[in-house]
Amino acid sequence: MTIVFFYDNFIFVIYLDNAATTFLDKNASEVYSKYACKYFFNPSAIYKQSASIKRELYDAKEVIANAIGTSFNNNIIFTGSATEANNLAILGSYRKIFGKMLFSSGEHPSIYNTAMELKNRGADVVFVNLTPSGEIDYNDLESKLSGDVSFISIMMVSNETGAINDLHKIAELKNKYCPNAIFHSDLVQGFGKFKINVDYFGLDMATISGHKVFGPKGIGALYVENKNLLSPIIFGGGQEYNLRSGTENVPAIMALATSVKNFGNLKENELHVKECKNAFLSEIACTKTNNDYINKTALSCKINSNASPYVLSLSFMGVNGETLVHMLEEKDVLISRGSACSSKKAGNRVLENMGLTSDEVLGSVRISFSKYTTIQEAKEAGRILNECYTTLKEKLK
Amino acid sequence: MTIVFFYDNFIFVIYLDNAATTFLDKNASEVYSKYACKYFFNPSAIYKQSASIKRELYDAKEVIANAIGTSFNNNIIFTGSATEANNLAILGSYRKIFGKMLFSSGEHPSIYNTAMELKNRGADVVFVNLTPSGEIDYNDLESKLSGDVSFISIMMVSNETGAINDLHKIAELKNKYCPNAIFHSDLVQGFGKFKINVDYFGLDMATISGHKVFGPKGIGALYVENKNLLSPIIFGGGQEYNLRSGTENVPAIMALATSVKNFGNLKENELHVKECKNAFLSEIACTKTNNDYINKTALSCKINSNASPYVLSLSFMGVNGETLVHMLEEKDVLISRGSACSSKKAGNRVLENMGLTSDEVLGSVRISFSKYTTIQEAKEAGRILNECYTTLKEKLK
Repeated sequence: MTIVFFYDNFIFVIYLDNAATTFLDKNASEVYSKYACKYFFNPSAIYKQSASIKRELYDAKEVIANAIGTSFNNNIIFTGSATEANNLAILGSYRKIFGKMLFSSGEHPSIYNTAMELKNRGADVVFVNLTPSGEIDYNDLESKLSGDVSFISIMMVSNETGAINDLHKIAELKNKYCPNAIFHSDLVQGFGKFKINVDYFGLDMATISGHKVFGPKGIGALYVENKNLLSPIIFGGGQEYNLRSGTENVPAIMALATSVKNFGNLKENELHVKECKNAFLSEIACTKTNNDYINKTALSCKINSNASPYVLSLSFMGVNGETLVHMLEEKDVLISRGSACSSKKAGNRVLENMGLTSDEVLGSVRISFSKYTTIQEAKEAGRILNECYTTLKEKLK
Repeated sequence: MTIVFFYDNFIFVIYLDNAATTFLDKNASEVYSKYACKYFFNPSAIYKQSASIKRELYDAKEVIANAIGTSFNNNIIFTGSATEANNLAILGSYRKIFGKMLFSSGEHPSIYNTAMELKNRGADVVFVNLTPSGEIDYNDLESKLSGDVSFISIMMVSNETGAINDLHKIAELKNKYCPNAIFHSDLVQGFGKFKINVDYFGLDMATISGHKVFGPKGIGALYVENKNLLSPIIFGGGQEYNLRSGTENVPAIMALATSVKNFGNLKENELHVKECKNAFLSEIACTKTNNDYINKTALSCKINSNASPYVLSLSFMGVNGETLVHMLEEKDVLISRGSACSSKKAGNRVLENMGLTSDEVLGSVRISFSKYTTIQEAKEAGRILNECYTTLKEKLK
């Protein structure tokens, strides 16, 4: 059981909102302190102590590079968040390209809203639809690909539903219609969970985040195969190959590298999380309220689909998902409405694009597991959610 | 003596590069860990644990607001660095204004290079000269002010020389010629060192940094009096009043607030640092190599000038400042060439604008003290610097 000592009392919560953020691994936290308090030197200074720090920064870049299947540490640009990395990929490419920009309709707000910003500025921005299972619609994608497409950004794993896009297949389509287009992917919900190989995926750029993988908040990175494709969006001292100015956040970078070294066996983790998900779903199923959870990805997972077991989107018919979240929070189970970054907004752009009805969207909640979730926790959370739903539905009768 | 345990050996260094970066205060580091490992929830989530974190974020904003003489926590926007805050002020204003943009020639690269970027994009960017003492030339400023000026950015304290600009006086001039212009100041080297009152200074926007005040790296903030004046430069989930998207870096924000609470008595700190500076300079003076340190700000400090005692720029004639830095590093005294953010570049734009000769620029070094520097350390560093200079000059004869 994930034990969280909350507000200095020993309160146990079952934390199933790992797609929103995770705690910092203990050994990563120690590394953070070490570089914040002790080896705190500015890596851009010219004395030897700084040169040592600079070398360690490159080692950290190599750790990140290896974790996404490449060996070139010089292709990693650290940013202040994955949001900034996504912005850098999009806005930083925009200044150097001509032509259409393609995005999936399922993107995280840091991609979607940046695309909308460019659309408002007059860019030729096109969105590709999702299938009912939350994946990208490959037919719709193919129909929108042409020689004048210059930039494509499609996420690896949906933060809303866990749906996985086949990046290799997308790259093949891209190479058929617009081989020179830049292909970027937001890997945030795939990084540290599934095997990533940017070369096999055919990616020119890719984004990862620290705080979704038990690393620090305030650190992200952009992989970029050819740095000439990018312009900076933040100007100044010229750090990170002149692509992201600002004193390097050494403690957070070193802590992130530590968290990455903690990943463990991704395949084993995935199998474990699948068991958690099934344990959770078995408690929901036995309520005899069949077909009350209906998001296709969630269901298709049960029939051994391609979806990530780490993220589960469920719709509870006839109730408001927000009410469920608050009922669960009273029982120390933390789940969410959907992306924290859009939790305050009405509706859910991604679920709507998948074709869910407004009732299905209203009744939706997101459960997100981690490698640290126990089967016992998952089962207990499922039981409590099921109980809350039954109570709520009774009340609303 | 500031004791730094370097690379797990007990190596004592005298750290006089505090203008480049500082270590994280121990209690701030503990706060960081607490919010990274324990109260790690995403403040944008909807459960009560997140709402608590959100409230604490606003408390942290209030701590920052109070430290710059205002009480409005809603006017503080956290960013990933002071560089990003400066970029947000400039690029975020640029989209909303028409007319000339004025910058001092002494600005940090995060302002200067952003201004140059806008100049290259066709903006009407004008630079105001510095006097030989490193302050802004008020006559030159006045001659460049007119009704079509819409944005002014002038730093409070020079990171290169410690020269202090009179922001209140600049605001009076601004109000005479272009009352509607936005007045921004990079307060980074003044924050935590001198009393700041954004209202008295007449500022519309102001930038502060974490890692120059014994707070964390990777966190900065922009004060903005009227948020309608700004457009975001990073798009996404709409955090920070939609002006800076990305999951809030809660641990770093809470740690920064802790460091600010540690400031102590600014006036007492300043007097102490003045003593340090004088102790340091007395060791240089007694070398009988009179007039070998010649930067006007450094000299004028000795005659009780307006300059910040925290930053000292010295020129050693006939030698290369970089060689001196490396000689000192061998004796465990860390000083710098100048701004770490521009240490790799040839020359020194700021010193050159002050009218220093190329020999003076070549021989320049920067010494920057902190409230934690001891007089003994300062004196010892001065002695060692003097010794190195004498040795080096002998060698070059």
